[in-house]
Amino acid sequence: MAVAVKSVEQICRDARRASRVLARTPTGVKDAALEAIARALEARLPEILEANERDMEAGRAAEISDALLDRLRLDEERVESIAAAVRQIAALADPVGEVIDGRRLPNGLDVRKVRVPLGVVAVVYEARPNVTIDAAALCLKSGNAIVLRGSSTAAASNDALARIAAEAAVGAGLPEGAVSLVAGGGREELAELATQRESVDLIIPRGGESLKEALQAVATVPVIYAASGNCHVFVDAAADLEQALAILLNAKLQRPGVCNAAETLLVHEAIADRFVPVAAEALSEAGVTLRADDRAHALAAPAAGERAEPAGEHDWATEYLGPTLAVAIVASVDEAIEHIQRYGSGHSEAIVTLDAAAARAFQLGVDAACVYVNASTRFTDGGEFGMGAEIGNSTQKLHARGPIGLRELCTFKYLVEGDGHVRA
Amino acid sequence: MAVAVKSVEQICRDARRASRVLARTPTGVKDAALEAIARALEARLPEILEANERDMEAGRAAEISDALLDRLRLDEERVESIAAAVRQIAALADPVGEVIDGRRLPNGLDVRKVRVPLGVVAVVYEARPNVTIDAAALCLKSGNAIVLRGSSTAAASNDALARIAAEAAVGAGLPEGAVSLVAGGGREELAELATQRESVDLIIPRGGESLKEALQAVATVPVIYAASGNCHVFVDAAADLEQALAILLNAKLQRPGVCNAAETLLVHEAIADRFVPVAAEALSEAGVTLRADDRAHALAAPAAGERAEPAGEHDWATEYLGPTLAVAIVASVDEAIEHIQRYGSGHSEAIVTLDAAAARAFQLGVDAACVYVNASTRFTDGGEFGMGAEIGNSTQKLHARGPIGLRELCTFKYLVEGDGHVRA
Repeated sequence: MAVAVKSVEQICRDARRASRVLARTPTGVKDAALEAIARALEARLPEILEANERDMEAGRAAEISDALLDRLRLDEERVESIAAAVRQIAALADPVGEVIDGRRLPNGLDVRKVRVPLGVVAVVYEARPNVTIDAAALCLKSGNAIVLRGSSTAAASNDALARIAAEAAVGAGLPEGAVSLVAGGGREELAELATQRESVDLIIPRGGESLKEALQAVATVPVIYAASGNCHVFVDAAADLEQALAILLNAKLQRPGVCNAAETLLVHEAIADRFVPVAAEALSEAGVTLRADDRAHALAAPAAGERAEPAGEHDWATEYLGPTLAVAIVASVDEAIEHIQRYGSGHSEAIVTLDAAAARAFQLGVDAACVYVNASTRFTDGGEFGMGAEIGNSTQKLHARGPIGLRELCTFKYLVEGDGHVRA
Repeated sequence: MAVAVKSVEQICRDARRASRVLARTPTGVKDAALEAIARALEARLPEILEANERDMEAGRAAEISDALLDRLRLDEERVESIAAAVRQIAALADPVGEVIDGRRLPNGLDVRKVRVPLGVVAVVYEARPNVTIDAAALCLKSGNAIVLRGSSTAAASNDALARIAAEAAVGAGLPEGAVSLVAGGGREELAELATQRESVDLIIPRGGESLKEALQAVATVPVIYAASGNCHVFVDAAADLEQALAILLNAKLQRPGVCNAAETLLVHEAIADRFVPVAAEALSEAGVTLRADDRAHALAAPAAGERAEPAGEHDWATEYLGPTLAVAIVASVDEAIEHIQRYGSGHSEAIVTLDAAAARAFQLGVDAACVYVNASTRFTDGGEFGMGAEIGNSTQKLHARGPIGLRELCTFKYLVEGDGHVRA
């Protein structure tokens, strides 16, 4: 059977039409559609695994790395956890219709500021096929139509998942066009998608720097970039050093490859000779290489041996996403703040201190999405923050900062009611 | 005395430095600085008028229009009203530090979502010199440094006003660089300003479409466009026709040249033969020309005579900003919504009806910043909405929609406090 492939423009226009219906769809219908998607994923497991096997074969033939192959791979357990995530999103509170603010004006007009869906959200992502369903569930729950554009590596898996989700959604009463996937992972499709100003309200890229740069060059649709996380842990003079070590190890090691992992350790000079050797020993034992400034290097080298290297200027700005940590000694809280302002990416920053004044100065002075006192940077996450789930993490200041959850996928409108009011 | 002119980049970098201090400046100090600015404007009136007279002379020599000359002109009364506006902004609640949301997480971490300044806001504007002070006062109150870029027509006036404001601000304890003006109103300065991603957080253009297009072509800094307002008044079958007429005349005539004035009248066919002739008579008497579809034209022509013209397709999409109104007959609320979705600019839309179901359908179905029931579109205004003042009106959906007041000049950050919390 010959199936006409819709153009990107047509897909987006259909999504726009669907979005007008979705914006008015009751919570119960949306939740039932999400449950239908979860069930369809379970029921059509063989179809998903077959499609995934085709991607895996192609990936092996193209000799992509084992790490990428693992990210690409689906099995029964992974599909079940994708379905479970959909059910968790269904169980969240509906952000649409929430009254954010409201008052009666002196002239008697009633004004309500009410949350409404953005409309059409495009999500552009790389290898992991689970994003197809996660992103679709978040967008549908928040009343948005979604246009997905995955990578060619996962084309068959994404196609199967998106088709199953779209069919289940329509079967449960959502409009045609609520979920769609742009066929073809090429840069032309990306450019076409990124310029549909009439029909796409927001693009969220989930992927590496090259994807972001490609988007930045062409996008006329608004984009929320989930930029990189160059996160710092600052151990203050008044830190509980045991707490500091636990927080540092957690922030660096619990999952080094993600954006809220620590990349630089800053240590107050007053406790450097006590803390740096202990930290260096624990980190080097865990396989972490330290890139340390002169003073830190002198303190770290006896414990860390070859795993203590001198830091260069570029180390302060590097997001290693792996077993490397930059280390610097600072003379004060202010110097720590100064360092973070200069090199940080505005993601997640932590101070470890028992000094209330130092904690307050750090929280006021550091300009980042999340500023921690005596806690690991690893908590920056929609799930951890009680937002239920997230579609990414924003390091920009407009619209969404930090986890992008259901509310951040919405805008608002003012509803104003009178009885013949005219302006004097 | 030779004064070195700072480059745009240097001005923005200095503003960034000032913004770090401003973000932590207490409300009392900011309010005192605003009062000092208001007083300085009054005390240095002769200097302002002298500078303004130079712009007026140049304007007359360049034969700019009387309307533009009037917008450019300052006199004692106008300067006093500018000073009064500054005092009104000082009296508003400080948005900085407001806790927007917060909770204790199940693991015991305390999370607060707290409003903080954006940092550096650039305002690009055209002839009216009062914007120099209005925008500066709103930015300072919300803890932002401001970089102003006015038009060359008002160069001397803007320079005097910005200098007076900057000197008064610094004299009252605000940092150097909190208020600055980019010298030169050329397109190169605009392009340079619009690409200072490192030091400018937001650009707000206040001006016509050509300014917006110029920005769209070059800006890499985020921009909030205050797009045009193609606003509709829909008179439903169940409207109180007296109310409808009053609202229509107010929306069209109270101030036709602004973005929240009505540009199209939609009339339900069930009451068209009663409403259109009455409306046509009142509007034509007020000097308004109607561009009407066939049915509306037949009903309007007897009363409006030559002021009833046939509408073309382009009329539905036109923001006249003057004494012209497009008129169409629709068969239902849904058809009215459909028309507005197709041609509207998402600014302000009104339905006049006593039917609760029609009102609800209109408010749910129309995707615009402000949706009115039985009230004039002219109320879309930060002052009217109780936000105190506004720096513009946004028709985009991200970050700010509708009036851009003090809160919209802010972002937020999450402050998270624990006692050694690590992620499991």
